[in-house]
Amino acid sequence: MSEHTAKHQSEARFEERFEPQVEIFDTTLRDGAQGEGIAFSVQDKIAVARALDELGVAWIEAGNPGSNPKDMEFFRLARDLGLQTAKLCAFGATRKKGVTPQEDTNVRSLLQAETEAVVLFGKSWDLHATEVLKVSLEENLAMIRETIAFFKDAGKTVIYDAEHFFDGWKANPDYAMTTLQTALEAGADRIVLCDTNGGTFPDVVQHCVKEVINLVAHSGVSALRGLIRGKESEEELRELAGKLVGIHAHDDAGMASANSVMAVQAGARHVQGTLVGFGERCGNAALAAIVPSLELKLNLRCLPEGRLERISELTRRVAEIANVAVPDGMPYVGSHAFAHKAGMHADGILKVRRSFEHVDPARVGNDRRFLMSEVGGRSAIAERAKKIDPAITKDHPVTAAVAARLKALEAEGWQFEGADASFELLVRRELGKYKPLFSIERYRVVSEHPSSDGATCSNAWVKVKVDGSTEIAAAEGDGPVNALDGALRRALERFYPELGRVRLSDYKVRVINGNDATAAKVRVLIESTDGESAWTTVGVSADIIDASRSALVDAIEYKLIHDIERRFKAYI
Amino acid sequence: MSEHTAKHQSEARFEERFEPQVEIFDTTLRDGAQGEGIAFSVQDKIAVARALDELGVAWIEAGNPGSNPKDMEFFRLARDLGLQTAKLCAFGATRKKGVTPQEDTNVRSLLQAETEAVVLFGKSWDLHATEVLKVSLEENLAMIRETIAFFKDAGKTVIYDAEHFFDGWKANPDYAMTTLQTALEAGADRIVLCDTNGGTFPDVVQHCVKEVINLVAHSGVSALRGLIRGKESEEELRELAGKLVGIHAHDDAGMASANSVMAVQAGARHVQGTLVGFGERCGNAALAAIVPSLELKLNLRCLPEGRLERISELTRRVAEIANVAVPDGMPYVGSHAFAHKAGMHADGILKVRRSFEHVDPARVGNDRRFLMSEVGGRSAIAERAKKIDPAITKDHPVTAAVAARLKALEAEGWQFEGADASFELLVRRELGKYKPLFSIERYRVVSEHPSSDGATCSNAWVKVKVDGSTEIAAAEGDGPVNALDGALRRALERFYPELGRVRLSDYKVRVINGNDATAAKVRVLIESTDGESAWTTVGVSADIIDASRSALVDAIEYKLIHDIERRFKAYI
Repeated sequence: MSEHTAKHQSEARFEERFEPQVEIFDTTLRDGAQGEGIAFSVQDKIAVARALDELGVAWIEAGNPGSNPKDMEFFRLARDLGLQTAKLCAFGATRKKGVTPQEDTNVRSLLQAETEAVVLFGKSWDLHATEVLKVSLEENLAMIRETIAFFKDAGKTVIYDAEHFFDGWKANPDYAMTTLQTALEAGADRIVLCDTNGGTFPDVVQHCVKEVINLVAHSGVSALRGLIRGKESEEELRELAGKLVGIHAHDDAGMASANSVMAVQAGARHVQGTLVGFGERCGNAALAAIVPSLELKLNLRCLPEGRLERISELTRRVAEIANVAVPDGMPYVGSHAFAHKAGMHADGILKVRRSFEHVDPARVGNDRRFLMSEVGGRSAIAERAKKIDPAITKDHPVTAAVAARLKALEAEGWQFEGADASFELLVRRELGKYKPLFSIERYRVVSEHPSSDGATCSNAWVKVKVDGSTEIAAAEGDGPVNALDGALRRALERFYPELGRVRLSDYKVRVINGNDATAAKVRVLIESTDGESAWTTVGVSADIIDASRSALVDAIEYKLIHDIERRFKAYI
Repeated sequence: MSEHTAKHQSEARFEERFEPQVEIFDTTLRDGAQGEGIAFSVQDKIAVARALDELGVAWIEAGNPGSNPKDMEFFRLARDLGLQTAKLCAFGATRKKGVTPQEDTNVRSLLQAETEAVVLFGKSWDLHATEVLKVSLEENLAMIRETIAFFKDAGKTVIYDAEHFFDGWKANPDYAMTTLQTALEAGADRIVLCDTNGGTFPDVVQHCVKEVINLVAHSGVSALRGLIRGKESEEELRELAGKLVGIHAHDDAGMASANSVMAVQAGARHVQGTLVGFGERCGNAALAAIVPSLELKLNLRCLPEGRLERISELTRRVAEIANVAVPDGMPYVGSHAFAHKAGMHADGILKVRRSFEHVDPARVGNDRRFLMSEVGGRSAIAERAKKIDPAITKDHPVTAAVAARLKALEAEGWQFEGADASFELLVRRELGKYKPLFSIERYRVVSEHPSSDGATCSNAWVKVKVDGSTEIAAAEGDGPVNALDGALRRALERFYPELGRVRLSDYKVRVINGNDATAAKVRVLIESTDGESAWTTVGVSADIIDASRSALVDAIEYKLIHDIERRFKAYI
């Protein structure tokens, strides 16, 4: 094979394999699982790993096999996962004091995980060595050196997490830097600076990252030599050294995103975090809030082509697996991230998108929303109504009619900003694109204490009418609304069996004009789902049962109308 | 009066009045109200203003009287609020194009708010002038100049919000700086740089703040002249200029905290945000996450002595008024902020506190929690129980009993943060200082539609027992809870006529475990008043009527116990 052909083939391989400019390292399955209220089964872990691989992160830290037997089971199953982009790593500490790495069971269990890479954490802060581990500063260096060398001899890629690096650097900068020098010389492939307690400010992070890149650039270690082609300028040498330097931030001072992004601005090219931000205390750096900043604002490729557009969806999926909601206000991917309420903002957006949007929501797979509220305006209404009838403009008479109706309803305490499905029904009524699909003829809800079994009990009785036929059903419930919901669905399922798949996924109550106390109006928001999509409806009344009935009716009608549209579109 | 005496008196006044090193400016009631799902009644607004004043912020931006009639009503009521530390401001835009400030109704409504200060926002971004407002760049400057001059002539303090400053600076730095120069020359007392779209990174913020401080330091404007004593060095001059420069950040790139803190590091001394982080899209800079960083890490005094310790409590109170939860992972004040899950972390903490804590949670009035361990906030409990019995200390057996009871109730969804009266009853029960004053033997609540008069109707029937005698009463109501409340009071008034003066002043419902939908538990908070004082009680149940019953019973018992104490103290 001629030299020319070899070079050509190597370039072709380079093009085939995705090479990020910044390595994204997700630790949802390890540090994320240390967050309060987060617990993953082995099946959950596999689902999370699949989602992260679909997103295209470079590394998935999947657990601590030494401390958690469930993690070891995951690593056994993971060998057959067939991940496309992501490589798995197992996480553990440097060896214990007074033993060799071979004698340390935690160290050995890291080998048994059979991952391409291991993440080793060691102590950078002198206080932690002497006061927590109770070892001498020299012994701590030996623990770092020998454990890394052990894994390099075993052929592993070694990512070295310098735990508490910034606190260590503040306390004893020379010693903190010596721990890194030791790790480098022992053969570490990455040096990751950890703000374990999360209290460091971005200026310190930037300063330290630059110092560490300098250290790496002039270390002459083999990890760097592998990248050097010779004759690099000082600047190019630092750029290459940055590929070996990473950041691991926590959000205890609200600085996790800034610390991560500013570390990259300072040259680091490896970013650790958890997609949704799960983690100890205030959480780890949330990758879903950071990757878009790196890709869209610093123009650094982190994910394969086309994946950033899926980050909102995949973040929701990972949160769903953990059974928590993505925070509404989460940057880029939250449901409020591109929601505009003030009329002036909505108006500005419709004139020039970027006037009130820092990035285009489509770039991160999120949606622009105009909240329907008294501070909104006609432009926002028209924009929303267009989805039902594309002919509707700001000056269309229906827009004015909807605006007037909205204003009257808001004066009575209605609020449509979180209730897109009820808003759609309102627009349909004004457009004449609506006919009731059922009516409630009567209902009666009784709560009593003590009931026959001695506890409090609610039961409901409902009579509905559908296309001339009536049906009566009754249900018991944990409260009056739960009972009414059960009876209503039972009565309607005879006519609309598809309602069997619908369930309420969230229920919120807000009292309006609180100073009228229990005689005040209540606003009920109900989120429903059929397993594929979710929609929210609203109801307002002085009577919480009546308000709930109104939101329940909207929720059912919305579902039925969309099913009809989908199934019978051709006839309409 | 001699000059000496005058000077002495002025110094004394200076010492009496709290003078922060960084001015904290809260806009929960204006920008916060633009957040999705946030809506305040006038009573809510007053309660928020009181909480912010208790915290000791310098400024409260309380609304936009030109765009919202509800805000004007608040400003009318606010004149009698008697705030101690905070000063109120009204917010509005510079005049519209083609009119004088006198002719602009929004401008005039700002005067009618009768606040000491007004906040005026103007356009810094050329795009917004030409494409959104559709005015020439020259006309935009005239709008800024004339509106500020108008309010200075009216004797107001003028805080100038340079909307979209950073985006403007990126697009056309000369023009952006010219708008500030114009505002300064027209007499603005503060120049606040706004990252309205929230997409700016901290490096740009730092750079701009330094440039703007430089501009102010050499502007020779009267706002700066008032601070100068003569012979300041260049550095001192910049320090004084920084007092006129503010930052207003949004969190769309997760940088709001970092942008605020780094602006202060660059010399700005006025920080705008909302306590909990409410605001358009991803929210405003969350002051509860920023003030602790400024006070504890940069050693800059923001609040009067002893107030930082109340920031967790007051943040929860403001969130409670808005009927939203403080995010668990919120820096400093969230319930997870000092919760340690990993065994290694808990172990480290018990050896050396700072090994896994960036600040002491007591400094911000938050609690350290070891998950799955009994260590709770006994000091806090003892502190509150002392109000009932001064003999109670942290080590008193009742404190441990209350802690255990609290822990059990919290696991069931109870929360006593906002319900002091229910907490007092809980402590009394543990102290043995409690005997039920009545019991509910039976109740039955019926809601039906249509009722005899065609509308929805709720009615309740209650049987109570007091000291061996029973009484039955019934009432109709606007909803089931209102009906139950009416019947219960009617039945008890025969025994306790003083209940005739009690009325419910607020009623809030929060669903816990939202994903179980209508079968989830609800937490009801009830505020009651007898015209002299107000107290809040809580109830939790799967049934909203049962939860309300529990809170109503506490509310009535609390009132009766305090009346008995007051009337019969001599005999007890």
